[in-house]
Amino acid sequence: MPTLADIGEDELIHRLVRNLPQGRGVLVGPGDDCAVVEAVPGGGHLLLKADAVVEGVHFTRDAPPHLIGRKALARAVSDIGAMGGTPRHALITVVLPQDLEVGFVEEIYQGMAELAREFGISIVGGETTRGSQIVISVALSGQAEVFVARSTGCVGDAILVSGTLGGSIGGRHFTFQPRVKEAQWLVRHHRPHAMMDISDGLGADLPRLAAASGTAFVIDPALLPCTPGCSPEQAWGDGEDYELLFTAGQDQVAGLMADWLRVFPQVPLTVIGRLVALGEGTLPPFASKGWDHFATKG
Amino acid sequence: MPTLADIGEDELIHRLVRNLPQGRGVLVGPGDDCAVVEAVPGGGHLLLKADAVVEGVHFTRDAPPHLIGRKALARAVSDIGAMGGTPRHALITVVLPQDLEVGFVEEIYQGMAELAREFGISIVGGETTRGSQIVISVALSGQAEVFVARSTGCVGDAILVSGTLGGSIGGRHFTFQPRVKEAQWLVRHHRPHAMMDISDGLGADLPRLAAASGTAFVIDPALLPCTPGCSPEQAWGDGEDYELLFTAGQDQVAGLMADWLRVFPQVPLTVIGRLVALGEGTLPPFASKGWDHFATKG
Repeated sequence: MPTLADIGEDELIHRLVRNLPQGRGVLVGPGDDCAVVEAVPGGGHLLLKADAVVEGVHFTRDAPPHLIGRKALARAVSDIGAMGGTPRHALITVVLPQDLEVGFVEEIYQGMAELAREFGISIVGGETTRGSQIVISVALSGQAEVFVARSTGCVGDAILVSGTLGGSIGGRHFTFQPRVKEAQWLVRHHRPHAMMDISDGLGADLPRLAAASGTAFVIDPALLPCTPGCSPEQAWGDGEDYELLFTAGQDQVAGLMADWLRVFPQVPLTVIGRLVALGEGTLPPFASKGWDHFATKG
Repeated sequence: MPTLADIGEDELIHRLVRNLPQGRGVLVGPGDDCAVVEAVPGGGHLLLKADAVVEGVHFTRDAPPHLIGRKALARAVSDIGAMGGTPRHALITVVLPQDLEVGFVEEIYQGMAELAREFGISIVGGETTRGSQIVISVALSGQAEVFVARSTGCVGDAILVSGTLGGSIGGRHFTFQPRVKEAQWLVRHHRPHAMMDISDGLGADLPRLAAASGTAFVIDPALLPCTPGCSPEQAWGDGEDYELLFTAGQDQVAGLMADWLRVFPQVPLTVIGRLVALGEGTLPPFASKGWDHFATKG
């Protein structure tokens, strides 16, 4: 009997979601940054996202607790933002060892509350339960008049990323700024064809965007916007960048780049490659073989 | 520095929620069965609930995995139901040890999907991550035209419970039927004053309802609807009943009981006591001292 270690996360998710019930009013189900459903029958788009951080996987107990809390919520905010949504209501479920100091948990919540205020989010409920390791599970709702999925990229599209990639483990995985306003601006002024945030690393997430869009991709490693001190390989593989990854028609790119530079002069925006037809993709030389199957099938 | 074991769950929650941001459009925040917010500005009630089950706390790994999954979702369904809502969209976040068999996780999801179909719920997304013990965290949205909070009971109200209480550990904690249709019927035909579900046991949850309503309570232990083979003490303290606990005006009770008996002949409904003014409450003789403070302050 295979274990989870044998099959990996993407295969596990594939197996788990194939038989889940999806009613009418579900516009985007499992597989995108967040789900999109009708808020009330016939009215408005409601975005729903769940995410969790686990002690020993996403943080260690010697990290400042307010940054642990901030990160737990910021990851979900990034996902709502990456579809063009505005985050609204959060539910926080925490699993806590009984020997944990109360002050530690209070600081986790202070970090979450601070980020929530910054983004206009209400923390409306949650649950606490005991367990052997700290788990912070966040459910976040959002709203969007118009949303952008990861599955609507087109062959020929330019591939763009915001910010710089790589080296997030040095601290930015705690302090990153979810690109909510940048994404909303993009959706309003230069509707991207497909968009997602980079959480598992460009090397994991770009293949997912391409596969969801039924395309492959070609990137130029020399164009990757590396965080100072990082190699292109790190920019490709490190992960936890929480930058925007999106595609746009070639005829959109020049105008979009010029406008972005004017509105967000502090945030780099870089064209790194393009979507191509299935079977025509190539991987950067440093990509691990593990991702091969994404580059060539839908 | 105090630990969580020192202060207990209710004090922890009290400390955590007091500074959480609550925007306009939040009708019910932390502290009730679920949160109630405006679905879209100006339109409709959206109910939001998060809950989690943890290996070694809520189940053990020798339990049938489909029942573990069923229970994880059914608990949240019960909470949405207990406010009079209809459950709609679920997000499932699972923390999984890497040595777990894939089939075990698939069966957990089958149990959830089966219950979801039964209640018309779409499972629209979620997250998987690794960890040292299994955690299943559920976020569930619902809708309600009219909702009933736990905080709106009145001095003099009759206190009623559905079903029988106690002994859930014998199996019903896995197989209980969330009282969604019963609660919706109540809200439509005999609007209860206050309502919640009994998850931590009547002895924990009734004091919460009374405290939220600014009242105390008196119950008659001889009236408790004990599960066959259970003592009144077990009915009071065992927990995981997932039955409805609600209050209604004394003038409503006779008509409500008669109608209920006609519509739900299989489900007992019992008056167990009444809400009284603060300071006038009494506890059953078998109540542990731990709950004293709830009976006498708001």
